[in-house]
Amino acid sequence: MTTAKRDTYTPETLLSVAVQVFNERGYDGTSMEHLSKAAGISKSSIYHHVAGKEELLRRAVSRALDGLFEILDEEPARVGSAEGRLEYVVRRMVEVLITELPYVTLLLRVRGNTDTERWALDRRRDFDHRVADLLRAAADVGEVRGDVEVRLATRLVFGMINSIVEWYRPDGRGMNEREVADAVVRLVFSGLRKQD
Amino acid sequence: MTTAKRDTYTPETLLSVAVQVFNERGYDGTSMEHLSKAAGISKSSIYHHVAGKEELLRRAVSRALDGLFEILDEEPARVGSAEGRLEYVVRRMVEVLITELPYVTLLLRVRGNTDTERWALDRRRDFDHRVADLLRAAADVGEVRGDVEVRLATRLVFGMINSIVEWYRPDGRGMNEREVADAVVRLVFSGLRKQD
Repeated sequence: MTTAKRDTYTPETLLSVAVQVFNERGYDGTSMEHLSKAAGISKSSIYHHVAGKEELLRRAVSRALDGLFEILDEEPARVGSAEGRLEYVVRRMVEVLITELPYVTLLLRVRGNTDTERWALDRRRDFDHRVADLLRAAADVGEVRGDVEVRLATRLVFGMINSIVEWYRPDGRGMNEREVADAVVRLVFSGLRKQD
Repeated sequence: MTTAKRDTYTPETLLSVAVQVFNERGYDGTSMEHLSKAAGISKSSIYHHVAGKEELLRRAVSRALDGLFEILDEEPARVGSAEGRLEYVVRRMVEVLITELPYVTLLLRVRGNTDTERWALDRRRDFDHRVADLLRAAADVGEVRGDVEVRLATRLVFGMINSIVEWYRPDGRGMNEREVADAVVRLVFSGLRKQD
């Protein structure tokens, strides 16, 4: 775990250490003592930056949620055929998941024991619904298949995308976010079967 | 949580209670005391059936692993085109996951802190490799697309299937294992895009 000197500390580096600890120990299992040790600064220095660990959680999951919601505001997610917009959103979800990996990992592990966790779960659900709406729109105009129920299809596609946090490691040796996104888009839209 | 009288207890019902507690509290967070309370029998009665909680874990994940490995021995997984065999395995994986939901859920949450957990992870990896081999065989003969790397495709397909444990609830109101399996097979092999 990285430690840093007190005078080099910014809210940003503190957040990055906190997310790492939350992901390793679980949010419930993390105390201010753990955060202080991991950051190499005193608890009072942490309280200088934030009101407590729940504020760090809120900032961390906000970063993941903001990254996801911003996708929906990007032009290719707003303009064009429903299928094209959906494809763009799926691709960008994979890219955001990989570029914000620790933050999205934390978001996906949130359980709902505190106000902040329940708020994060609500926002996640909102995002899921926005993507499900896009899928429904594409099915309504016959651009995507209508024989898989929209909510189930959304869950399965999200399941595939979210599972990337279980194995992706940004060590520079594996695929980059673009290559993983290409593979996901191919599988989600065309499936494994060879196209004739 | 179900409680049962001592004289009605069998190793099977004890296992079912233990799996429920492991999934709720995490294996590491479960003590013999928790198991005793949940089962409504004394610790010494539990020790009459098993050597300790690690034996219960081993029995529970074995049930999930046996269910998965048995798929590979079934005739449609051994005979026919590689793609047909792969499709059969994907369908049956979903069915086993749903019929053995608490056991597979526990298997997927195993971390590797004890010998039993490491053994379970090894067996999971073996199973993954067997399915990856089938996918590779289907790609080699041109039955499935070759433009998504086999290991990545396997991970993404497993990610979709395994995510079902996050939301599937056997309350009789939702879809049964057959309907979910149909949807997964459609998405995995043909994708969302409408076939012409």
